[in-house]
Amino acid sequence: MQGYALKMHKIPVGVLGASGYAGRELCALVARHPALTLGFAAANERRGECLKIDGRAISFVAAEDAPLHQTPLIFTALPHGTSAEWVDRARDAGARVIDLSADFRPGSARGAGVPYGLPELTRDAVRDAVRGASLVANPGCYATAILLALIPAVAGGLIATDATVSVTAASGVTGAGTAPRRDLMFGEVTENFSAYALGNTHHHLTEVRSTLGAFGGAAIDLVFTPHLLPVARGILATVTLPLAVPLADPLAVWSEFYAGEPFIEVTSAAPTLRDVAHRNVARISVVAAAGVRRPAVVVIVAIDNLLKGAAGQAVQNANLVLGLDETLGLAA
Amino acid sequence: MQGYALKMHKIPVGVLGASGYAGRELCALVARHPALTLGFAAANERRGECLKIDGRAISFVAAEDAPLHQTPLIFTALPHGTSAEWVDRARDAGARVIDLSADFRPGSARGAGVPYGLPELTRDAVRDAVRGASLVANPGCYATAILLALIPAVAGGLIATDATVSVTAASGVTGAGTAPRRDLMFGEVTENFSAYALGNTHHHLTEVRSTLGAFGGAAIDLVFTPHLLPVARGILATVTLPLAVPLADPLAVWSEFYAGEPFIEVTSAAPTLRDVAHRNVARISVVAAAGVRRPAVVVIVAIDNLLKGAAGQAVQNANLVLGLDETLGLAA
Amino acid sequence: MQGYALKMHKIPVGVLGASGYAGRELCALVARHPALTLGFAAANERRGECLKIDGRAISFVAAEDAPLHQTPLIFTALPHGTSAEWVDRARDAGARVIDLSADFRPGSARGAGVPYGLPELTRDAVRDAVRGASLVANPGCYATAILLALIPAVAGGLIATDATVSVTAASGVTGAGTAPRRDLMFGEVTENFSAYALGNTHHHLTEVRSTLGAFGGAAIDLVFTPHLLPVARGILATVTLPLAVPLADPLAVWSEFYAGEPFIEVTSAAPTLRDVAHRNVARISVVAAAGVRRPAVVVIVAIDNLLKGAAGQAVQNANLVLGLDETLGLAA
Amino acid sequence: MQGYALKMHKIPVGVLGASGYAGRELCALVARHPALTLGFAAANERRGECLKIDGRAISFVAAEDAPLHQTPLIFTALPHGTSAEWVDRARDAGARVIDLSADFRPGSARGAGVPYGLPELTRDAVRDAVRGASLVANPGCYATAILLALIPAVAGGLIATDATVSVTAASGVTGAGTAPRRDLMFGEVTENFSAYALGNTHHHLTEVRSTLGAFGGAAIDLVFTPHLLPVARGILATVTLPLAVPLADPLAVWSEFYAGEPFIEVTSAAPTLRDVAHRNVARISVVAAAGVRRPAVVVIVAIDNLLKGAAGQAVQNANLVLGLDETLGLAA
Repeated sequence: MQGYALKMHKIPVGVLGASGYAGRELCALVARHPALTLGFAAANERRGECLKIDGRAISFVAAEDAPLHQTPLIFTALPHGTSAEWVDRARDAGARVIDLSADFRPGSARGAGVPYGLPELTRDAVRDAVRGASLVANPGCYATAILLALIPAVAGGLIATDATVSVTAASGVTGAGTAPRRDLMFGEVTENFSAYALGNTHHHLTEVRSTLGAFGGAAIDLVFTPHLLPVARGILATVTLPLAVPLADPLAVWSEFYAGEPFIEVTSAAPTLRDVAHRNVARISVVAAAGVRRPAVVVIVAIDNLLKGAAGQAVQNANLVLGLDETLGLAA
Repeated sequence: MQGYALKMHKIPVGVLGASGYAGRELCALVARHPALTLGFAAANERRGECLKIDGRAISFVAAEDAPLHQTPLIFTALPHGTSAEWVDRARDAGARVIDLSADFRPGSARGAGVPYGLPELTRDAVRDAVRGASLVANPGCYATAILLALIPAVAGGLIATDATVSVTAASGVTGAGTAPRRDLMFGEVTENFSAYALGNTHHHLTEVRSTLGAFGGAAIDLVFTPHLLPVARGILATVTLPLAVPLADPLAVWSEFYAGEPFIEVTSAAPTLRDVAHRNVARISVVAAAGVRRPAVVVIVAIDNLLKGAAGQAVQNANLVLGLDETLGLAA
Repeated sequence: MQGYALKMHKIPVGVLGASGYAGRELCALVARHPALTLGFAAANERRGECLKIDGRAISFVAAEDAPLHQTPLIFTALPHGTSAEWVDRARDAGARVIDLSADFRPGSARGAGVPYGLPELTRDAVRDAVRGASLVANPGCYATAILLALIPAVAGGLIATDATVSVTAASGVTGAGTAPRRDLMFGEVTENFSAYALGNTHHHLTEVRSTLGAFGGAAIDLVFTPHLLPVARGILATVTLPLAVPLADPLAVWSEFYAGEPFIEVTSAAPTLRDVAHRNVARISVVAAAGVRRPAVVVIVAIDNLLKGAAGQAVQNANLVLGLDETLGLAA
Repeated sequence: MQGYALKMHKIPVGVLGASGYAGRELCALVARHPALTLGFAAANERRGECLKIDGRAISFVAAEDAPLHQTPLIFTALPHGTSAEWVDRARDAGARVIDLSADFRPGSARGAGVPYGLPELTRDAVRDAVRGASLVANPGCYATAILLALIPAVAGGLIATDATVSVTAASGVTGAGTAPRRDLMFGEVTENFSAYALGNTHHHLTEVRSTLGAFGGAAIDLVFTPHLLPVARGILATVTLPLAVPLADPLAVWSEFYAGEPFIEVTSAAPTLRDVAHRNVARISVVAAAGVRRPAVVVIVAIDNLLKGAAGQAVQNANLVLGLDETLGLAA
């Protein structure tokens, strides 16, 4: 791996939307990546500024001034809605694109035929699709956690067909972006906790439901309630899953499904945000519920929302698109 | 109410276990109470010390030295298991007791016949039982939040009979007490979040299930997953409730059930910990889940774990036991 | 005190700038005050809204619609610069005014002849001036902490004349107001700490220096460095004070200076923000520095920036202006 | 650098006291270091356990079982007082030692002749002494920040000779270690801030004063007040420095003194804890105080207490001792 970096020239990549939390994390990951180098960091609001990211000074240009034609791979970390236009411009310029917005994800208007870059959902199929792709839709942070929790059960046909699957999840504030908002001020968030998007109104449900459908889980009744945590980063999802039949060893099901996956850690201990902070991994635990008549398991998934939930997964997808080792630059 | 305080002598009450978080909160509430006065504050570990609680200097005595005979009402805020012995001693001395431990709660070995002090579960029955009681079992903090969320649905026969009811809840660290523990150090809790007692192993489930049973909900399949929040105080419970039939206006069901209750706030806005901090109230919201085939609602309940979840509710029960106005000293 | 409230009608007071942190705190204090009642709460940005403050619903009106003529006392908690105009309008309408802005503080363009409402600086003189006043300049939060630390030494002629007095202080984020700012977002403030206004550029220095001058301390060389803390509320000031002569018992100097003051607590234990949170008090400790040739003491002062540093002190001044007991509604 | 790692075998190093905050950070740094490998991690309390540190599983042995003889370099991260014995045993076994305790620092009973590993205090002398050493005393965290702030002024003879130099500093809780203590519980530290070791009683003053003496600053009157911050990691020191003569460009003095130092960043912007978190750097700013008669500057220094204040600096010293590039494994 290091040999690779020494032998070949580094590949220039660009970041559109580089001043947001995911964008900055992308810049930092690229700067440390043995096979990539940062061709440009674009952020209109901060054009001309030089930001210190992870100890490195990075100069920001306007998106209009970004050298799209000279950059083989571009990450778009722009707001939903805005991203699609820049994805088109980057592809017209000949670049491959990893799009971190929702604009091309499953269930969206332009999502058809675009691979959904959550490699661990299958052993090979997703990776094969991503490898040849000129555009990859990078999953949402909540969607990543929820799907990693559910797919082993869906694929195994374990979920009770008439059951309600409850997903509660809690995210750090970086999930809400860098734009100043009164409800995200320190004075409002500290010593506080709350639910939002009640009643299945969070927009990540679209890609979750579409993906469940693709795995034969179209009939699953999901109720998703996100929460805002007084922490900077991390998502913890808690899934209560009624089962069709009892499982003697539920942990083994998830453990076998993800066997060999470099970025999935299935553990008997309950995962914490700290376990996964600043790492491109999902840590998962599964426990059977005691004292119930209908069998059920609780699945807990922890990810760093900015890494496995955004920039880390985007680099993982970029590695696949560029034919590099999938783990390059993402040492856990 | 103020006239009352002016006309009569204040009633001396005692606190056994006064140095813990709930015990200190009790001392503060009693000190501000217009009809009560602090007869003693006992805490073996800190006997002889003088603690500043809410700006008032309070001298701690050893439990053995507490004047049980001269104190008409005693709060026991001792660890589970230890409490029962002191409850017996206090009652032998002629005192009425509000016990904050689990030792006399529904489903426990000694819980039979002891009123469970969650007045809002019924309009009159609980209050009538508490009013004449010489001993009241004060509910657990999680149990308070969960039961306030569920009972309106149970009482109305709204819950689908074969469904799995998911309860996730998150608590501030004061719920875990004052004894030094490595996993509760600031350096471990800050910027962290995790689930614990996975698989229905939390001890509050006993009183929750027993109480549900008393309301005709013995058959409810509950899966409860508590979490630890990086905040000092507060509990937010998120309940996903599959329904037998759709509800046109779910909020109205909870709103009507709790109509006139001084310490329950049913709101259309999602409650936050901040809404209830330092207040003896439960704030509740209910929303129907969209995009599901089997109807379901999400119920959110926020309480201050040290007030409506412990000391505040204990004073509410003490007011009832002593024939005082239930809201005395608990101004929201 | 309670008898007072029962016997007489409550006095209506108004708050201009009621939606900021200090404004909301004022509304809450007035709502709980036994002799005052909230005549209006004005906040242009949130006119027409009904905010829950401390459990009470408060309707906000536009400043233009506030009934200035029917309100005997008005608090102005508006931004510096904006406040002066509204102070004039309120006084023209016949109201007495407690102004929380810097517009009328010592050293400001319009500060001459306006009493500076920090009663504890003298035993009688400040209070006498405030009692008869139609306008009181309420001190800044940092200025309150710094002056309470320094004045006993200045009044006693204890400070070495050619010395540099160092003041570092750290404030919670509510000191910076409610307007959304990127640098005050939770994601930026959590796990962070920094100094600002380096090199004596903080605007509170004006009122501090003017007040020191009035106490004979015009020659004191002060270097003030404020810091931003990852907490919601509180200020802790740490003052390093080179002395003209050694003090055998430095704590006694401050203790005697503030003897009998209801809102000052001089303690041998180092004060913490928690000691003073949600209380209208300043807690002060003083310790002699060991191992130095020139004698020096360290003075620590802790206040709640929103109470003794703003709204609480404003109510203290309002009580004086209205001829009420100075401590009314400010029970520690 | 990478070539180096590929060409030669990695050098095994050991950590005694590996379960504390500094010890764990050392394990993580060694695991990522291109020229070092972790020979053993010893921690009596947790012997036999396998801890996940930075995503890597590390098995802990008892100190007695550590293979001291086969380990060319050993870090001792043990409590003050306990460390000396193990330093002796490690040296008797032939190992070179970087001691993170205070036992061999300047001014301590056994500190004579032991190089004090703060390389940036001089351009060459400290590094020359460390390079040949069999034992290096790694500086304390506060001492590192304070000395980096002061030495350029001391070396330049800039400090007013009869002045009082004020140093206030604030540290995250990891500076206090991992042993459970009530005052370090999350519930006590959150939303709090306080000073401690008032009156020049902090034990780091010994090494600070001895080192100042070695640079000709024996006569400096220092008053040091440390504070506890509600953050996990980081130290920010604020130094108020009365000058013998005014400085036209104070920043230039520090900037020139540290020119070329890889781990020192002198900036015009005020440094924050976030700027230095998880990095082995000190970031420094210097500003002249306005409005004073005697000239003074304010120097702000930010470090990560666990890196430049402990484990990072220890690896920096280990690199020097082993003849490696000083920056190896410490990429900023």
